Amino acid sequence: MTHSADRASAAGHGLAHQDILSVNQFNTDMLGAIFALTDEMRSTVRASGGCDLLRHHVLTCLFYEPSTRTSASFIAAMERLGGSVIPITQGVQYSSVAKGESLPDTIRTVEQYSDAIVLRHPEVGSARVAAEAASKPVINAGDGAGEHPTQALLDLYTIHNELGTLDGLHIAMVGDLRFGRTVHSLTRLLLQYDVKLTFVSPEILRLPLDLMNAVRDAGLPVRETYSVADVIGDVDVLYVTRVQKERFTDLAQYDEAKGFYNITPDLMRDAKSRMVVMHPLPRVGEISDAVDTDPRAAYFRQMENGMFIRMALLAAVLGKA
Amino acid sequence: MTHSADRASAAGHGLAHQDILSVNQFNTDMLGAIFALTDEMRSTVRASGGCDLLRHHVLTCLFYEPSTRTSASFIAAMERLGGSVIPITQGVQYSSVAKGESLPDTIRTVEQYSDAIVLRHPEVGSARVAAEAASKPVINAGDGAGEHPTQALLDLYTIHNELGTLDGLHIAMVGDLRFGRTVHSLTRLLLQYDVKLTFVSPEILRLPLDLMNAVRDAGLPVRETYSVADVIGDVDVLYVTRVQKERFTDLAQYDEAKGFYNITPDLMRDAKSRMVVMHPLPRVGEISDAVDTDPRAAYFRQMENGMFIRMALLAAVLGKA
Amino acid sequence: MTHSADRASAAGHGLAHQDILSVNQFNTDMLGAIFALTDEMRSTVRASGGCDLLRHHVLTCLFYEPSTRTSASFIAAMERLGGSVIPITQGVQYSSVAKGESLPDTIRTVEQYSDAIVLRHPEVGSARVAAEAASKPVINAGDGAGEHPTQALLDLYTIHNELGTLDGLHIAMVGDLRFGRTVHSLTRLLLQYDVKLTFVSPEILRLPLDLMNAVRDAGLPVRETYSVADVIGDVDVLYVTRVQKERFTDLAQYDEAKGFYNITPDLMRDAKSRMVVMHPLPRVGEISDAVDTDPRAAYFRQMENGMFIRMALLAAVLGKA
Repeated sequence: MTHSADRASAAGHGLAHQDILSVNQFNTDMLGAIFALTDEMRSTVRASGGCDLLRHHVLTCLFYEPSTRTSASFIAAMERLGGSVIPITQGVQYSSVAKGESLPDTIRTVEQYSDAIVLRHPEVGSARVAAEAASKPVINAGDGAGEHPTQALLDLYTIHNELGTLDGLHIAMVGDLRFGRTVHSLTRLLLQYDVKLTFVSPEILRLPLDLMNAVRDAGLPVRETYSVADVIGDVDVLYVTRVQKERFTDLAQYDEAKGFYNITPDLMRDAKSRMVVMHPLPRVGEISDAVDTDPRAAYFRQMENGMFIRMALLAAVLGKA
Repeated sequence: MTHSADRASAAGHGLAHQDILSVNQFNTDMLGAIFALTDEMRSTVRASGGCDLLRHHVLTCLFYEPSTRTSASFIAAMERLGGSVIPITQGVQYSSVAKGESLPDTIRTVEQYSDAIVLRHPEVGSARVAAEAASKPVINAGDGAGEHPTQALLDLYTIHNELGTLDGLHIAMVGDLRFGRTVHSLTRLLLQYDVKLTFVSPEILRLPLDLMNAVRDAGLPVRETYSVADVIGDVDVLYVTRVQKERFTDLAQYDEAKGFYNITPDLMRDAKSRMVVMHPLPRVGEISDAVDTDPRAAYFRQMENGMFIRMALLAAVLGKA
Repeated sequence: MTHSADRASAAGHGLAHQDILSVNQFNTDMLGAIFALTDEMRSTVRASGGCDLLRHHVLTCLFYEPSTRTSASFIAAMERLGGSVIPITQGVQYSSVAKGESLPDTIRTVEQYSDAIVLRHPEVGSARVAAEAASKPVINAGDGAGEHPTQALLDLYTIHNELGTLDGLHIAMVGDLRFGRTVHSLTRLLLQYDVKLTFVSPEILRLPLDLMNAVRDAGLPVRETYSVADVIGDVDVLYVTRVQKERFTDLAQYDEAKGFYNITPDLMRDAKSRMVVMHPLPRVGEISDAVDTDPRAAYFRQMENGMFIRMALLAAVLGKA
């Protein structure tokens, strides 16, 4: 829609009629307002399943690559607000697009039918291209190796919701810190808070230099280590991500690495009684199923928070909150 | 969700907050209550198209294999009750699942967004696995060669609705009785009623031994025959299914068999004036199109009953009926 | 549903409980009534996003081939009227249909769940076959090289809405006039008005003889030319379509042709100040992006009109307008 989001008022969420393209557009005041709104959404769903705030509103979910979790979450969010969805979650490649239509033309077409657009696209920067073409709000639901801001917001909200605060926390990120888009975005958001960060990864999957420098520039205490066992006793948040076999050229290295990053009930015995384990899911073995019943296992609640935060964001950009 | 469905109260449908996994969980009291509720749904749709009973409720339709008929029927049912649907009817194989996510993890994710889950899956037993993982009701919409209970319920309801009763009826099952999941499930439900059963099939597609023994153990009169002509004059219900060419190694046998199972206006002249012809559809030649205008042809009404019974079941498991 | 649409009352739209299969079923009285209704739909959406006219109504969108634009437009139309959609927009080929089900059987099944059916099918005449099978209204959303009447109606409505009238206008059709289904349908509708027509195309893509004769029989002034530059100064409407490379055997011919049909800001300087440029979209170079900001560029408004006209048509065939 516009690029003025960064200039949005620090009072309130400042999102009415704005795009959501990047985590960089949020300051702590806005985040606080969004979290308060998300809390309201949670209460509404708990009390009555939903409401009619976005009645007669239509959202286009335009997904150029499949993402069951993200699209389901946005669809649920819109429906629980009483709105409707045009799901274009497959086949775009076979239709207009196959005929060579440009992304701006597709965007300018679907915005004729809808009040906002959620876009998932494999190319970095596509969300910004879409937003420039659109006169309706565009929400970036992942643009390749670029950003996925609603994921970062739901992660941040989950920490806030589970532990009541962000300031003063010791947060460890675990796994593939080099390529993990969720880790990068969440880290950027955390730079605005008074937190201590520990990055736990195999050598070849360490956090990129520029991001590590940003952490240091923010003046936050930071450490790196190879093993979860090193930090499990001290952390408030253990944010776990997948370590993909494909990243390793030496499989012996992979097998060794795997052992360091498997969260088990045994490992959890060393953790604080009040802390949370998070994961953007899907997991493939990083967290043992036996941990699921541990009250500190927050990853499924994290999924539900994804719906709540998207409800808040939809209501906000549509000027209804 | 839980396994206590079998222990559900015999008074009322007993389905509130329960899963629907198998025909074995229903006794005649529950079936009577479900049919009464289905009658109400029919009246509501006839009078006004739908209602707001499930307003602000969200249903996930999670289909790991396509089934246009079943998914369309569940979507229509939810929408006519004023609720919304998250349709995950394709692409699951390309997304989280492709990344190796387990069925329980997928279920525990989508239940964060929705109030109930309809699951179609190619593997026997998958619905039970899903129900064990879920804290929300799971409805089995077909698990491979396993069960498809809502199909059996709509079949049973159709007989009840068309003929006003089940007791005292002579019901013939026709076609592929060996592999036909709908025949097996409907037969199991019928064991609880005072019916006479005739099984009409080619030799190589006869009803499995265990099911035939269950019929005999229930003390019901039962016969087997090769030809519809043998029974057409006496039956109240002719339940026809497809005979698939692929089942035959000897094509001459197939061609011979085909002739025995083709329902034509000519054959219908020998049938009672008050009886019904049913078919789970799709058909491919078993019933002549010329029979469609015969008032005894109930197979399209049977489809509509599928929507009504699913409305009743959704309302029931969501505790709204 | 029926074939009596042609006999529909000339007073009012005459569409209640009728099918929409062909542009031939509309006379100018009906078109006027439809346009008035479409204006109302526009006002409703502008004022409040939508209404509850079709609350508790269910529409099946049965698409045997993908068409993002058309299906999105129908889904939005139904949702803005407060109704719901069963989207069968992919996978039909893998499911019942793959099992050999006939189109009439599929139609008679899905109509059990819904109040109207929108059908897109690759075969000419399929919409009529569907309508004969159905007892609910069928709307043809494109049947191969056959018709796509709602596209023609939205085109006609756009001219009317942009210029306030149809009579007295000079309308030029540009591009592939030989195979372009939208050009053929719109031309047939225009025969009922007092317009002047110019057809602009390469030699091998000229308007078919029968249609040219129909224009002459209607007594309308008509011209043909190879170049847009010849007419740009005089037209009220420039209706541009794609010229597909595949149509040419001689690529030199294609390259030459391309230059004649590229709408640029430079070319637009010669156009009247009050005229409109239309395109059914997607475009692939026929209209320069630089034209988009020209107030005479109506092609995106044309898309929005697609939603408004489909709202009007859905309300009309469902007897609610």
